[in-house]
Amino acid sequence: MKILGIDPGLQICGYAVIDADRNNMKLLEAGVCRTDSKKPIEKRLVQLAQDIKSLLDKFNPACMAVEDLYSHYAHPKTSILMGHARGVILAAACENGTDVKSFAATRIKKSLTGNGRASKLQVQRSIKSLLGLAKMPEPADVADAIAVALCCANTI
Amino acid sequence: MKILGIDPGLQICGYAVIDADRNNMKLLEAGVCRTDSKKPIEKRLVQLAQDIKSLLDKFNPACMAVEDLYSHYAHPKTSILMGHARGVILAAACENGTDVKSFAATRIKKSLTGNGRASKLQVQRSIKSLLGLAKMPEPADVADAIAVALCCANTI
Repeated sequence: MKILGIDPGLQICGYAVIDADRNNMKLLEAGVCRTDSKKPIEKRLVQLAQDIKSLLDKFNPACMAVEDLYSHYAHPKTSILMGHARGVILAAACENGTDVKSFAATRIKKSLTGNGRASKLQVQRSIKSLLGLAKMPEPADVADAIAVALCCANTI
Repeated sequence: MKILGIDPGLQICGYAVIDADRNNMKLLEAGVCRTDSKKPIEKRLVQLAQDIKSLLDKFNPACMAVEDLYSHYAHPKTSILMGHARGVILAAACENGTDVKSFAATRIKKSLTGNGRASKLQVQRSIKSLLGLAKMPEPADVADAIAVALCCANTI
């Protein structure tokens, strides 16, 4: 079963597609969607929605996994912008008929490491081990997208 | 020239369509789009985008006016949710080819009352006077949508 994990963002949106086959997890593709910060926000949002729809078309995942709404609080401006991006991403999945599942940050960490308060490094080690990767995909947005996809796979 | 003013929100989204003809401002329609809080957020976002598209189809406004991104800070949870709604609203306008204009809260107040720090009551009085209304439209989301539409008309 294919799962698309998304780390929503307007500047950089991380994504990861994993194939979860019983106990075997395989990373099919991971990367980032970027939008041009010189363009008006509405054009960037349409671009992002199109990029997400392309991923859904290409992989036809059983579901899309994202972090919970309220995981990002530290910077109000960033979190409102993230909200814009998350909004069009969720709408794109829904319009495509793709099931959306969301997970709290602590649940993702717990699912991957056994500890809801694990460090970034611990999460990255689990990801490498679960997927048999030689090194961690970068940037961090990709790692976060992989993490939520793996959590979703563990849950299902 | 027709202008669609929007006060973005997921629960209640205020809208107002005004016809700005030189010095004569006319309110064509105002109201709210509501989404069902029992439904998953992605379905509510798609519903909201469809409602906005219906308004754009019905009135074919020259532009859509919204408050600036960073006007709403007091409640982080609310502002992130508002961000989701604002995201799909802006994307809907852009997909429709409708120009999007955004205005700071202080600029809206100043445009309507001459004072960037005017009270809600002062803004409402100006709206009633400018549009020749017997009483203020309710709820407050509608008044805010009218205010940003009038500010946009004054600017153009």
